[in-house]
Amino acid sequence: MTAYLLEKAWVDGAVREAVRVEIEDGVFTSVEPDARRTATPLRGLTLPGFANTHSHAFHRALRGRTQRGSGTFWTWREQMYDAAARLDPDNYFALARATYAEMLAAGYTSVSEFHYVHHQPDGTPYDDPNALGHALVAAAEATGIRLTLLDTCYLAGGIGQPVAGSQVRFTDGDADRWAERVAAIRHDRVGGAIHSVRAVPREQMPTVVAALRGRPLHAHVSEQPAENEACLAAYGLTPTGVLAEAGALGPDATAVHATHLTDADIALLAATDTEVSLCPTTERDLGDGIGPARQLADAGVRITIGSDSQAVVDPFEEVRAWEMDERLGSISRGRFSASDLLARTTGRIAVGEPGDLVTIDLASPRTAGTGADEHTAVFAATSADVTHVVAGGRPVFDGDHARIGRDLGAAIDGVWR
Amino acid sequence: MTAYLLEKAWVDGAVREAVRVEIEDGVFTSVEPDARRTATPLRGLTLPGFANTHSHAFHRALRGRTQRGSGTFWTWREQMYDAAARLDPDNYFALARATYAEMLAAGYTSVSEFHYVHHQPDGTPYDDPNALGHALVAAAEATGIRLTLLDTCYLAGGIGQPVAGSQVRFTDGDADRWAERVAAIRHDRVGGAIHSVRAVPREQMPTVVAALRGRPLHAHVSEQPAENEACLAAYGLTPTGVLAEAGALGPDATAVHATHLTDADIALLAATDTEVSLCPTTERDLGDGIGPARQLADAGVRITIGSDSQAVVDPFEEVRAWEMDERLGSISRGRFSASDLLARTTGRIAVGEPGDLVTIDLASPRTAGTGADEHTAVFAATSADVTHVVAGGRPVFDGDHARIGRDLGAAIDGVWR
Repeated sequence: MTAYLLEKAWVDGAVREAVRVEIEDGVFTSVEPDARRTATPLRGLTLPGFANTHSHAFHRALRGRTQRGSGTFWTWREQMYDAAARLDPDNYFALARATYAEMLAAGYTSVSEFHYVHHQPDGTPYDDPNALGHALVAAAEATGIRLTLLDTCYLAGGIGQPVAGSQVRFTDGDADRWAERVAAIRHDRVGGAIHSVRAVPREQMPTVVAALRGRPLHAHVSEQPAENEACLAAYGLTPTGVLAEAGALGPDATAVHATHLTDADIALLAATDTEVSLCPTTERDLGDGIGPARQLADAGVRITIGSDSQAVVDPFEEVRAWEMDERLGSISRGRFSASDLLARTTGRIAVGEPGDLVTIDLASPRTAGTGADEHTAVFAATSADVTHVVAGGRPVFDGDHARIGRDLGAAIDGVWR
Repeated sequence: MTAYLLEKAWVDGAVREAVRVEIEDGVFTSVEPDARRTATPLRGLTLPGFANTHSHAFHRALRGRTQRGSGTFWTWREQMYDAAARLDPDNYFALARATYAEMLAAGYTSVSEFHYVHHQPDGTPYDDPNALGHALVAAAEATGIRLTLLDTCYLAGGIGQPVAGSQVRFTDGDADRWAERVAAIRHDRVGGAIHSVRAVPREQMPTVVAALRGRPLHAHVSEQPAENEACLAAYGLTPTGVLAEAGALGPDATAVHATHLTDADIALLAATDTEVSLCPTTERDLGDGIGPARQLADAGVRITIGSDSQAVVDPFEEVRAWEMDERLGSISRGRFSASDLLARTTGRIAVGEPGDLVTIDLASPRTAGTGADEHTAVFAATSADVTHVVAGGRPVFDGDHARIGRDLGAAIDGVWR
């Protein structure tokens, strides 16, 4: 049993003082505000951990390096493929370990990894056909982040187009062979993904859905107008419509980005209780546009955040970007309350929930004088203000941001050398 | 004479190694890349200082505190007036000193302060009618930031409306009395401002323009659609049009925000060589909308950044917000190059220029592995990565971010207690 005494903590939607928590076997067994008994003190404001619902760990090697000249999502993708071509099980392990450590130090205690680089550079499977997936699992175990490995089905280079270039590393040939490989992954939280309506032919989708049965199923959906246009031209349906017909929407499903949706798409997501993962800092970076966060929430859709391309790994900035871009789109403030934003993007400090704690400094240049409550977390803090992180009862970050940077530098050198 | 050896520095639009600089009497007297001689080393990437072209220092007391419930720019303004009502020369000095120290530690080495709280809470002048302006001057001198004090003319509560509430602290009655007071300010960089077309009657504007003759003249312009509508209804002209007719545009003039402009407005700003101060993190926060940065630049208008409401004091984030919001508005990337963004928002490390240096850590969780050039500065760094700042040859920040936070906390407590 581990016990902490939290100077201030966001519990049940409000900031409470002197919260004593006990964690056993990774979950909270006691949460007591205004506690009199002592425990290991955590000074500052403690939040539950943020959930990162969309990550491509290896994109961390691209930060700052894909910004030369002008371009679009599609030219950025070419640069991303260069990085994908350089991955091997060793450098991928090192990069993912450093990136997951960055996530933990920023306040994310769980991550859903949308993993699509499966095979050797020429497309041949590794001796362990899940060598790269297992590198991600090992990286998560080494750092303490709670990983859901979303093994991604990727079969085509576009609707009706074969894979090409780096994409040969992504494909298993067909969905049956994808499912066979996925069944051999050794990890206790394995889900899957339909990369997109571009990369999985419509007739292959039901096989993916059937193989997952009740496990998480994610898909990139309507990130770009061009994807919608191609999908409508080929199938006469939007990407959301195609996924719905394939049975790929539902309470275990997550639509990622969901930037350019029709009203009918939003109604479909709501009717099927499909979650949406918004990735606003990536959507800014890639020029995707502003997603319909408020409209989705009003329709009853569960909306969450993902660090996606790792252009930014900072849940505070991510949540703020969501609200700020809503304001830019609507020309009004307070589109979501601070507590609503946190409730949608974090776990809970409550008995029976995972024992995750993220503590921020209330006296930094950013946070000083800002009220020391949930508004400080959402409207002032950044990842640089995180001083201590516990994931599943395990202390995973002690405030040494410099160590995180050193490991990232070495791991990224290992990709580009 | 002070000399530094910069490990990497952004000089003449590119990152160069081993740059040795000498500073005398506040300006660079030598700048030598690939230097062999030694000097005080600054490790990391060194940039020229950023120029903050629009600041209301006391708004720093509002960060995190104006985010309850929903609302608009106009409801936010009511909360801002609460803070304005609490200022006195002592707490304003302390707050401005802490805020200017935050700016320096974030990488801003100069600030244009748009100062409009002039008188006692009941509107009576202080014994020194510039007591509050002089508090700002003293705060700047205490910290080492290069202050341009823009004493702001504020005479009306709206077009055709008298001042009310906290606004009695802002008004001098008419522009002649404003000019008389401003003439008594003891500071070597005094400019002025027409608060807005709302707060200065059209017929008073030429008096302000004449009093300033060749000194900086700023004005809030078209931050909100409602301002445009009221101006058109009253005058049959846009705010830019009204300022142009009053002779308030020109090479010494700066239009602040300039968010909702017509094509004719942009042509007028370009034809008069008027500068624009964009404040994207504030414009996000207040739900103002996305300003036409690329369109202004294409028209030849000089565009700069301001921290304005201090919702964010981080020139890296401000510059990034400008580019990211351009991307969101246009759905394309690379709207400005990194070097262009830096050139528009910083000084220059060049002989004869102010001796300002801002050094960032290249191995932080944000910057590690990002290429160590101008793209790292624009697309990865934040104010938390600043390790050393020199302003006019004077070392003004040594990396102790915790001290900056402590001073802010105490100063803001002094306003709200």
